[in-house]
Amino acid sequence: MPEHAPSRLERRKARTRAALIRAAQALIAEGKTAVPILEITQAADVGMGSFYNHFETKEQLYQAAVEDALDTHGALLDELTTGLDDPAQVFAQSFRLTGRLHRRHPELSKVLLHYGLELATSESGLAPRARRDIEAAVRAGRFTVGDTELAMVTIAGAALGLGHLLHHQPERDDAAATDRVTEDLLRMLGLTAAEAHEICSRPLPALDTTATGPGTAA
Amino acid sequence: MPEHAPSRLERRKARTRAALIRAAQALIAEGKTAVPILEITQAADVGMGSFYNHFETKEQLYQAAVEDALDTHGALLDELTTGLDDPAQVFAQSFRLTGRLHRRHPELSKVLLHYGLELATSESGLAPRARRDIEAAVRAGRFTVGDTELAMVTIAGAALGLGHLLHHQPERDDAAATDRVTEDLLRMLGLTAAEAHEICSRPLPALDTTATGPGTAA
Repeated sequence: MPEHAPSRLERRKARTRAALIRAAQALIAEGKTAVPILEITQAADVGMGSFYNHFETKEQLYQAAVEDALDTHGALLDELTTGLDDPAQVFAQSFRLTGRLHRRHPELSKVLLHYGLELATSESGLAPRARRDIEAAVRAGRFTVGDTELAMVTIAGAALGLGHLLHHQPERDDAAATDRVTEDLLRMLGLTAAEAHEICSRPLPALDTTATGPGTAA
Repeated sequence: MPEHAPSRLERRKARTRAALIRAAQALIAEGKTAVPILEITQAADVGMGSFYNHFETKEQLYQAAVEDALDTHGALLDELTTGLDDPAQVFAQSFRLTGRLHRRHPELSKVLLHYGLELATSESGLAPRARRDIEAAVRAGRFTVGDTELAMVTIAGAALGLGHLLHHQPERDDAAATDRVTEDLLRMLGLTAAEAHEICSRPLPALDTTATGPGTAA
């Protein structure tokens, strides 16, 4: 909790930073990162000088924009898995929800795909939560994993590959495809085929009513 | 078999095309694809006009360069899995050898990583061979796979993620890491943990004596 209510100046600075980050996320999602800083500040509707109050370089802004998207996504997963006591189900539900985000929050999906294979070792968003859930499931005797970091390589690769496939095959049922990939990963992590199928058949919380994707937050 | 021996002109054309493709592969591996065509023809030591005898655009050359690298890699895998009669072992041996290529043929590895997630659905190289081996292993009762295309998403994602990790963690044992990821994938494909471990402990043919990576072919 902050020690004092933020001043008007602090609130204005926070709004400027958030506007720059939202503009950068939109550019990343469109694949248009090679634009002048002036174009970013115009899209954010802030002055050119404001940029340098917050970031030293364009790359620093893009890094902050990706981390913000990963944190937004991670917070959404935390919210949507609250109250589950089986870490295997927390992992499965997070992956099933992430797969469904590619079509339902395409901008967030494209920021994740832009981040690419770095995702597996990131300290923000999906990856640290997946590592936490895998390790909890191993301790609970649910998963059998030799090397969490190497399992994460496959899991992040599957998450990215799935997003890529769902964007390129718009006719494919995203929920069915995501649940199939999640089942595959659960078998890899040591569940039986029957357990993996059962856990991926459970009802999910509604994703669309939770509006916390980038660009939707206040 | 060709109906006639190639003429001197045909041989010269083939040499020019091969030189352009090798130059493009080297540029892709260095991540320097945004260069003028003149720089490519100079690196290939061919005239600027020769470029347009073979390719209409730079993108067409890069596409041909990636397909050539994938085909070279695929032919190497075919050579190194000849005589194996268990399709599960063919799949495992191909993946184990591909993982070892990232450090031992870094240029080929970087061309594969540049191709990225398109790899899963490619008609050249690793992907069609992996699909063939998976389907043969399903028919032989060795693998249990619900949707080969979705399994390929995870397998290609794992192959790319592993390459990325091995380039970024030079201290990691590439053989041990590759065999662990292969074991994970075999469990996902329906083998028991014991079978997956046994199949990944078998001796491999020597990779380093086979010099067919890009840039090493005559």
